[in-house]
Amino acid sequence: VRISELARRTGVPVGTVKYYLREGLLPAGERTSATQAQYGEEHVARLGLIRVLVGIGGLSIATTRDVLAAIDDPPESIHHLVGAAHAALSPVTGGAGADRTRARELVARRGWAVYEDAPALGQLAAALDGLEAAGVPGLDALVERYADVAAELGRADVAAVPVDSPAAAVRFVVTATVLFEPLLLALRRLAQEDASARRFEPDATGPRGS
Amino acid sequence: VRISELARRTGVPVGTVKYYLREGLLPAGERTSATQAQYGEEHVARLGLIRVLVGIGGLSIATTRDVLAAIDDPPESIHHLVGAAHAALSPVTGGAGADRTRARELVARRGWAVYEDAPALGQLAAALDGLEAAGVPGLDALVERYADVAAELGRADVAAVPVDSPAAAVRFVVTATVLFEPLLLALRRLAQEDASARRFEPDATGPRGS
Repeated sequence: VRISELARRTGVPVGTVKYYLREGLLPAGERTSATQAQYGEEHVARLGLIRVLVGIGGLSIATTRDVLAAIDDPPESIHHLVGAAHAALSPVTGGAGADRTRARELVARRGWAVYEDAPALGQLAAALDGLEAAGVPGLDALVERYADVAAELGRADVAAVPVDSPAAAVRFVVTATVLFEPLLLALRRLAQEDASARRFEPDATGPRGS
Repeated sequence: VRISELARRTGVPVGTVKYYLREGLLPAGERTSATQAQYGEEHVARLGLIRVLVGIGGLSIATTRDVLAAIDDPPESIHHLVGAAHAALSPVTGGAGADRTRARELVARRGWAVYEDAPALGQLAAALDGLEAAGVPGLDALVERYADVAAELGRADVAAVPVDSPAAAVRFVVTATVLFEPLLLALRRLAQEDASARRFEPDATGPRGS
């Protein structure tokens, strides 16, 4: 298909498609004349993925290039690419100065096999630190419940990873990391809003709750 | 206590404490001389909360001021303050242009009572949109599982909100929103790493898994 059709099918403006071509995120099409080129299904799929990474994941062009390179040339071990995806996509907040002792204890108590320098360990440490600093009664008790739920989600995510090809596996892992983090936070807030309405405004939600 | 002791006890540098005083995030201490003031337990608690909001939540000074104002003068209904906390703390990514039809369908299917204009609805719409654009087989099936888990967490969070005073309730809701989002994401990534090690590198994790 021509570039205009590629833009139409993916919902990405022509100017943006050209930008991705110049930046090397999207491979060049097959030249049919001095000013025209043809694009195939692989371009449609690749643009869909770039849209997810840049538009929803908020990744920079440089990071997107790294992630796409990992998809084009996946590491031997699928386990290593889970780590690579986390590292590449990590907008890990804070944690650099946090004491990791409690985070390590939690992970050890759960018997989780994780790298000593996993960025998520710093993020967990910062959150546990904050919990202590905030000194809000009742929040501590929720941490183990969250860990139970996280274990369940982690198992479900990994069980669903396709193993027919490393490229399919990377694509799955990257997409799941980028999309399911905002998805999970959005769903939790909506569920909180519903639970809050039912607990604190039972009259208003009565008909819906019946 | 003096400002130096306040800084020591909260781990916040004296210069930063003075900055929070100037910005009005922290109420002035009781003047004991032209150059000295005394601070009480309420200052220690307030500083702990500011540290959480600014240092871990990454909130701006202006947003922190809004959140603290809501704590000092909480709305009548605890349900409304859950919404206010979400709105104030929302670093909702994208979603402005996303079609909300599927997001609304999911919420309706679950029977969740949420506002039509909840920011989380836009974030959910963007994630579901991205899921469609990415076209990765197997990911769709995970969405309902995530919604189940979110419902469980939302109920647990709300059930734990203290109702002895509106101020205690706001404090709980704000802290839970700021800290449990990064906590949940960090725990999920660590659990994924563990599940991935067990599925893809069973030899390396054998002894730990036994």
